[in-house]
Amino acid sequence: MTALLPEGYRDRLPPFADSAAALEARVLEAARLHGYERVDPPLVEFADGLEMRLKAGGLHDAVRFVDPVSQRTLAIRPDITAQVGRLAATRMGHHPRPVRLSYAGSVLKLRASQLAPAREWRQIGCELIGLDSVAAAQELVTVAVDALEAAGATGLSIDFTLPDLVQTLADGPLPVAADRIAELRDRLDAKDAGSVAAIAPDYLPLIEAAGPFDQAIAKLRAFDTSGALGSRIDGLVRIAAAIGDRVTLTLDPTERHGFEYQSWLGFSLFAAGLSQEAGRGGTYTVVHETGAEEAATGFSLYADALVANGGGVDRRRLFLPFGTPVADGADMRAQGWVTVAALEAGDTPEAQLCTHLWVAGETRAL
Amino acid sequence: MTALLPEGYRDRLPPFADSAAALEARVLEAARLHGYERVDPPLVEFADGLEMRLKAGGLHDAVRFVDPVSQRTLAIRPDITAQVGRLAATRMGHHPRPVRLSYAGSVLKLRASQLAPAREWRQIGCELIGLDSVAAAQELVTVAVDALEAAGATGLSIDFTLPDLVQTLADGPLPVAADRIAELRDRLDAKDAGSVAAIAPDYLPLIEAAGPFDQAIAKLRAFDTSGALGSRIDGLVRIAAAIGDRVTLTLDPTERHGFEYQSWLGFSLFAAGLSQEAGRGGTYTVVHETGAEEAATGFSLYADALVANGGGVDRRRLFLPFGTPVADGADMRAQGWVTVAALEAGDTPEAQLCTHLWVAGETRAL
Repeated sequence: MTALLPEGYRDRLPPFADSAAALEARVLEAARLHGYERVDPPLVEFADGLEMRLKAGGLHDAVRFVDPVSQRTLAIRPDITAQVGRLAATRMGHHPRPVRLSYAGSVLKLRASQLAPAREWRQIGCELIGLDSVAAAQELVTVAVDALEAAGATGLSIDFTLPDLVQTLADGPLPVAADRIAELRDRLDAKDAGSVAAIAPDYLPLIEAAGPFDQAIAKLRAFDTSGALGSRIDGLVRIAAAIGDRVTLTLDPTERHGFEYQSWLGFSLFAAGLSQEAGRGGTYTVVHETGAEEAATGFSLYADALVANGGGVDRRRLFLPFGTPVADGADMRAQGWVTVAALEAGDTPEAQLCTHLWVAGETRAL
Repeated sequence: MTALLPEGYRDRLPPFADSAAALEARVLEAARLHGYERVDPPLVEFADGLEMRLKAGGLHDAVRFVDPVSQRTLAIRPDITAQVGRLAATRMGHHPRPVRLSYAGSVLKLRASQLAPAREWRQIGCELIGLDSVAAAQELVTVAVDALEAAGATGLSIDFTLPDLVQTLADGPLPVAADRIAELRDRLDAKDAGSVAAIAPDYLPLIEAAGPFDQAIAKLRAFDTSGALGSRIDGLVRIAAAIGDRVTLTLDPTERHGFEYQSWLGFSLFAAGLSQEAGRGGTYTVVHETGAEEAATGFSLYADALVANGGGVDRRRLFLPFGTPVADGADMRAQGWVTVAALEAGDTPEAQLCTHLWVAGETRAL
């Protein structure tokens, strides 16, 4: 019994732990090449400070405990984006904008959901603080695709959404009673035509404006007779132009679930063979201590989904028989070999899962 | 106020977070070349199961919380070695011995100590499960030195100790009342000659048998007239022979603090310029579910100490002026450059901390 782990937590064994680390390093290297520098905030924060920066859901499912030092409640982070926002707004508040930051770390939840049974996972991401323009989104989408390709993902697709679409239309050409906006957003997200027709029939065409990117954009343009969505549509087209030759693009303008945090743009990242999203991102707002708001754009990848997809690690191992001179092993490691030294006379290359044997100063494949 | 972190937790900013990640990767690569494969146990375990495997101190200072799923108490790991022992004894219990495992991860404490004010840090290590022989110790010490050198550490030294020395002597040639052994061990560790003389004067020469390795070994041999320590002394000499040309060696045979967990051998790793130990290791015992015990040898490095020491990251950054063709940036990244694209006309290489400028299809140093 004592050997079992709590539900939602797991061990990663060889060779998957090595694969995961290698994948993470490749993803972060792709981001580094675009100027994103790594930050590493701690696992633990003051619960109230962290909650203020976590929009949807907040700390509801976070692990919390009382700090014997400060007597305040601390929380283990359920998300790293909020921490990067804190850093950008405080310790890096006076750094010239935009600031490009990357991160990779573990996040923890007290409760899992049926759809996402893990209670601990690796979050890797990039945040550009100071801009939420089309140029910013183009860069972030490009970095995400570079990172996913570096991770070995194939068959990439991106699904765009416009998280503040309903609010924009309601504030402009298609007024909706303030107390019904949330419901309308929810029913559009659910593609529930009957309910949308009952609340605001003018919005019905939006349900059809989803699908392959070019078709969906055409429908959205046809719907947008007032031009209220013009800059958003043009922006999407420009982003698509920057990346459309590398990935499949779709648009679901009223998708909202999971993008409560985003401003004008949200996107989900998919790859072939994954049972879940590879990541998601979009534009959002960072709040400074003064209350001032700052535009930002970013994305997070779910490393565990990518690792499950595979990711080869070289498992070539050279067995050094008992008594092999120390210098032989050092030489072979300097040449890039993984060496496994027999520490007892009875040890064998088979037991040590070796692929090669060191014999008479030469490697022999087994 | 909300921006501050709880005492003992901290943010790592550029360029230190990148340095830390690079250092960790180099350390793990050094271990991988010796056949150590990575495992990655979770941050959270059942508190009772983890406590059973944590010797000294146990979960006294660990963060604990009640699991709403199992209604059992869970703990955030204060140490990874115990988790690797669990893996080796359970899921990898039937893997041929010895098993070579490496790991790197965050560990957390609820309370810090005055000497170690951090409540979160990175632990990196290697464990060889199945052997605690001299050959095993030679390998682990070699891997530790390779890893420290890969991390850029210089001026390395290793301080050996013999954790079960007093028990071995008390069971043999120099009997001590069972209820005074702990006190004797403590007083020898403290080099408190007066108290040692009062408890067991025969042990007094051990206080002097500490210092530079060869001198200390000579004194220990002279002290060991019964030969009870013969195999330990011979073992130390063989380990020293394997590594003595690369590092400075010392011996403090009665040092005990922090080695309560170890069996016949313990060692501390030091490097020039560090304000604390770089790591420690030794031989110990892994307990299987059946109660069977298995010998093991390992070491852990404290990555934070090494990063504080420096560790250069290439900060060469190429500024791509506003409007630079996307393909130019991709080309330069493919050549290994870090590119920072201007996303607005007003952005400057100075603001983006760039060292080079992309002008007319060429790089120009700034």
